[in-house]
Amino acid sequence: IAAPVEINSRFVPSVKQLHTPLHSKSVEFKDIVKIGRTHTQDATPLTLGQEFSGYTTQVKYGINRVLDTLPRMYQLAHGGTAVGTGLNTKKGFDVKVAAEVAEETKLPFITAENKFEALAAHDAFVETSGALNTVSVSLHKIANDIRLLGSGPRCGLGELILPENEPGSSIMPGKVNPTQCEALTMVCAQVMGNHTAITVGGLNGHFELNVYKPVIASNLLRSLRLLGDASISFEKNCVRGIQANRERISKLLHESLMLVTSLNPKIGYDKAAAVAKKAHKEGTTLKNAALDLGVLTGEEFDELVVPHKMIVPSD
Amino acid sequence: IAAPVEINSRFVPSVKQLHTPLHSKSVEFKDIVKIGRTHTQDATPLTLGQEFSGYTTQVKYGINRVLDTLPRMYQLAHGGTAVGTGLNTKKGFDVKVAAEVAEETKLPFITAENKFEALAAHDAFVETSGALNTVSVSLHKIANDIRLLGSGPRCGLGELILPENEPGSSIMPGKVNPTQCEALTMVCAQVMGNHTAITVGGLNGHFELNVYKPVIASNLLRSLRLLGDASISFEKNCVRGIQANRERISKLLHESLMLVTSLNPKIGYDKAAAVAKKAHKEGTTLKNAALDLGVLTGEEFDELVVPHKMIVPSD
Amino acid sequence: IAAPVEINSRFVPSVKQLHTPLHSKSVEFKDIVKIGRTHTQDATPLTLGQEFSGYTTQVKYGINRVLDTLPRMYQLAHGGTAVGTGLNTKKGFDVKVAAEVAEETKLPFITAENKFEALAAHDAFVETSGALNTVSVSLHKIANDIRLLGSGPRCGLGELILPENEPGSSIMPGKVNPTQCEALTMVCAQVMGNHTAITVGGLNGHFELNVYKPVIASNLLRSLRLLGDASISFEKNCVRGIQANRERISKLLHESLMLVTSLNPKIGYDKAAAVAKKAHKEGTTLKNAALDLGVLTGEEFDELVVPHKMIVPSD
Amino acid sequence: IAAPVEINSRFVPSVKQLHTPLHSKSVEFKDIVKIGRTHTQDATPLTLGQEFSGYTTQVKYGINRVLDTLPRMYQLAHGGTAVGTGLNTKKGFDVKVAAEVAEETKLPFITAENKFEALAAHDAFVETSGALNTVSVSLHKIANDIRLLGSGPRCGLGELILPENEPGSSIMPGKVNPTQCEALTMVCAQVMGNHTAITVGGLNGHFELNVYKPVIASNLLRSLRLLGDASISFEKNCVRGIQANRERISKLLHESLMLVTSLNPKIGYDKAAAVAKKAHKEGTTLKNAALDLGVLTGEEFDELVVPHKMIVPSD
Repeated sequence: IAAPVEINSRFVPSVKQLHTPLHSKSVEFKDIVKIGRTHTQDATPLTLGQEFSGYTTQVKYGINRVLDTLPRMYQLAHGGTAVGTGLNTKKGFDVKVAAEVAEETKLPFITAENKFEALAAHDAFVETSGALNTVSVSLHKIANDIRLLGSGPRCGLGELILPENEPGSSIMPGKVNPTQCEALTMVCAQVMGNHTAITVGGLNGHFELNVYKPVIASNLLRSLRLLGDASISFEKNCVRGIQANRERISKLLHESLMLVTSLNPKIGYDKAAAVAKKAHKEGTTLKNAALDLGVLTGEEFDELVVPHKMIVPSD
Repeated sequence: IAAPVEINSRFVPSVKQLHTPLHSKSVEFKDIVKIGRTHTQDATPLTLGQEFSGYTTQVKYGINRVLDTLPRMYQLAHGGTAVGTGLNTKKGFDVKVAAEVAEETKLPFITAENKFEALAAHDAFVETSGALNTVSVSLHKIANDIRLLGSGPRCGLGELILPENEPGSSIMPGKVNPTQCEALTMVCAQVMGNHTAITVGGLNGHFELNVYKPVIASNLLRSLRLLGDASISFEKNCVRGIQANRERISKLLHESLMLVTSLNPKIGYDKAAAVAKKAHKEGTTLKNAALDLGVLTGEEFDELVVPHKMIVPSD
Repeated sequence: IAAPVEINSRFVPSVKQLHTPLHSKSVEFKDIVKIGRTHTQDATPLTLGQEFSGYTTQVKYGINRVLDTLPRMYQLAHGGTAVGTGLNTKKGFDVKVAAEVAEETKLPFITAENKFEALAAHDAFVETSGALNTVSVSLHKIANDIRLLGSGPRCGLGELILPENEPGSSIMPGKVNPTQCEALTMVCAQVMGNHTAITVGGLNGHFELNVYKPVIASNLLRSLRLLGDASISFEKNCVRGIQANRERISKLLHESLMLVTSLNPKIGYDKAAAVAKKAHKEGTTLKNAALDLGVLTGEEFDELVVPHKMIVPSD
Repeated sequence: IAAPVEINSRFVPSVKQLHTPLHSKSVEFKDIVKIGRTHTQDATPLTLGQEFSGYTTQVKYGINRVLDTLPRMYQLAHGGTAVGTGLNTKKGFDVKVAAEVAEETKLPFITAENKFEALAAHDAFVETSGALNTVSVSLHKIANDIRLLGSGPRCGLGELILPENEPGSSIMPGKVNPTQCEALTMVCAQVMGNHTAITVGGLNGHFELNVYKPVIASNLLRSLRLLGDASISFEKNCVRGIQANRERISKLLHESLMLVTSLNPKIGYDKAAAVAKKAHKEGTTLKNAALDLGVLTGEEFDELVVPHKMIVPSD
């Protein structure tokens, strides 16, 4: 009972509290064209808003993932008594108990369709923990990206400016650390660990009762609380204060060699590759390299290589 | 694409092939009253059919768990090209590709609502792997119970007679081992391991592309294949041939002290406990102990302690 | 610093407190011949003392496993300052700090041979956690065996009588549960989960500093405390009070069909298998089956099938 | 037997093949002063050689970690026959078998001190897998750092130039990806997954025999092979060809604000912090900021802020 109550009353609202500002950021940043990165290497551009829309979608799906496991969590074993048979209860007791719990909690609890499963296995908890494991994977990715995009201030990627919450070092004056990203990623590591504990507990039940319920339930409730609270903290102390370093973003974008990709339709992959490699080797611009190689004119280049046209399919 | 195809064409049918005979067994065994066990200790009775109905329900829910993750698996990143923007495609290309894939596979593939998420994260795989982890937990529990219930032939629980598939020992003549249970539980261990590999891969993506896709996809496909094939083998070489050792089951049931539970409504928990403890201490029957203690008459005892009335709630 | 101190001052003494009585039990039970079980099936006999000697050895090795990781734990990063270079310290500061810590703790702490490794990685913690994971695997096996050997009282294996610490059920009068085994196995599940959290933290460090130290250190310390405390509780409330159910053990032993193994040298594997299978099929004794098949005389049988001679190699 | 043979004949030599060139690189790069990074943020400088010496030490310790588990792996269960008693063998058979195996393999195999432990538990495999898990954590950290340090070529950190092994993209001309880092980190993810499978197998043994040996042994051997082969490939196709981008490294170093740390002894942490923050805010150099704030003279600044003096403790 505690887990669905926690999910509905606290976990989902907390994660939604992270979702909304992430979405706002994706709107706020929708016109900021930046370099994309695949394999950690420079790639074709996208907007910072598009990047944040990916995070937003991850969080949205995460909420759905957890909610989708609730139908099996709402099934109560109560009334099965010792081994699932309902010995020493009256017929209908199980249904009434569930109705009472539903009434009390305002949640659609029902009596378990099969009490033997409901007592002998805690699969529903393992399943929900699997959903929380997925949410942790998502949040770890988001927080890790944000700390790398905010790395610097001068020797990192530096595309994001993260809120300065506290001094970052007792030896390095002026240092600021992405502590909120660190807290969130540590919470994610813990939830993945809790998931292992729950899995080990779930697989070791015997006969009519899985007696690992205490370790399963406590880990599940801790995971819910940790992820929920960390989502709120991450939103409040980090996400809402994230600013784009427009100057830096623009500088990196225009230096990128991967803008060459927009030449493909005109001059083909091989010649475009030659342009990129020449520019890379000589430390020059794509335009200079293209002109040197004589694959197109300066006007053609300027018409084709327009970052803000590279962020959508063509008509 | 491969994972949903595998799930629909092979995994689900394979697990269903295990589900049906488990259900048949639960019907076949519906009148065999046996001792229940909680905390591995003797508990109140249930039918062997009820016990198998728990397994059946676990398997049924397992199929649902995997199917419930499919909506997010059906979302294709195709058409997002390098970083999700769709650069160098025409508008609508993504939708057409997905329609083509759906047509080809007869599965409801659609283009991803957000291509940035679909490329940068592989959360949908982590989620499905989490469902397979839960299925493994279920199948491990079932196979482990069956091997323990089939333990013996003379010094174990001995309630089930498992098919003899091969000689079990090169030194112990006549030994038969529950090899199918062992194979299935090893597959479950492997799938839990694959789940960790997928989780680690999922959490380490950077920026616009998670490059751990090979390790994620290969583990997911292996888990699907392993669980599906092991389900078929377990059904064919074990479940369908399981017989109840009625004589043994009956003997254990009638020796059990936990039948005392049906005295609770009449004489109360404390006196019933005294009866059970006395019988245990003196190695006698519950009836003798009850009569010795003078808590009820022999007729009352016989009327109350009727195992086959202890497997349902009272009217 | 905290982890090696905890290991030396509390964890190892606690686990040793479990080791000694396990060893005493293996001595106490050295003459009790019982049926062995492999693949959960009846096998050739051994003594209960031999069985407990296996547990004892597991625990002894577990202590060694953890101690063997200490040399790398004793290496201190102190004096490396921000990134391992020792900037703003004087030469030799690192050595002096380590000496001071060693003096204070009476443990052989030394300054890390390479400060860059010591700050950038927390591999030593991951390694020690791996050792604790192994200890958990050992203790889970032991506690699980003990609860199964103590299962019953009438419908389980019933070879061990476990201490009765508290009433086991609010519905089943007189029920006693192996709660200490359950507590210990749950602790083991938790430690395995903590190991995953530590592993995820360990693998995600960046550049000159792994910032997952809080989640790593807290999980490591929790695992040490949990395993140590659970060892003490398990010893105090369970192991020291374990009694052998000699009558039950003897009954099972003499019913076993696997005593047939001692006929191998005389009549060969195939004939011995025929004897065992015939006895099994007909529910008779090995001796009757052997005589019926005419493979040896009653005297020969009695001379060969002597359980207490089957527990060692022949001279 | 297979695992220690594999460890000695193939795994350790393979990982050593990675260790040596890493060490060579740490020597080759010993004079290249670069910016350090903690919390992914700019920190005080170190040499690229120092950074690589950390990796080298991690790999060296990894080899030791695995070797340290061998004493328990060398203990053979052979001669214990069915349940550890040695039934149907002659006294001394176990010792002779082990001697034979030692002779054949030229490895110090011995007969297990306790055959009951050696058959009933596979703790030694779980322990070695734990060591491999630690090695995976180390190698993941190294490969991840190298890909991030090699990110770019223009919009990443760009301090390392990684070998170009193959074209990196079918859409982005000229793109080169850190595929060797990706392969190695995927192998690490797999080994962590195998470790979970081994742990689950290890914890589920029953009585006199742990029957999960096939899943445990196959995963252990796969982990050894994967890590060994991936080490060789990573060395051959990546490490040995790594070049330092000296120009880029120098540029980042001199722009860094964390050089301010060397002002601490002179002007104190607070004033140094003010200098760093002013420079950061105004986009100017530390020197300009320091002069503007009047905390020291230009000469004093030049004398104190000398990166190549910041990589060791002072005399």
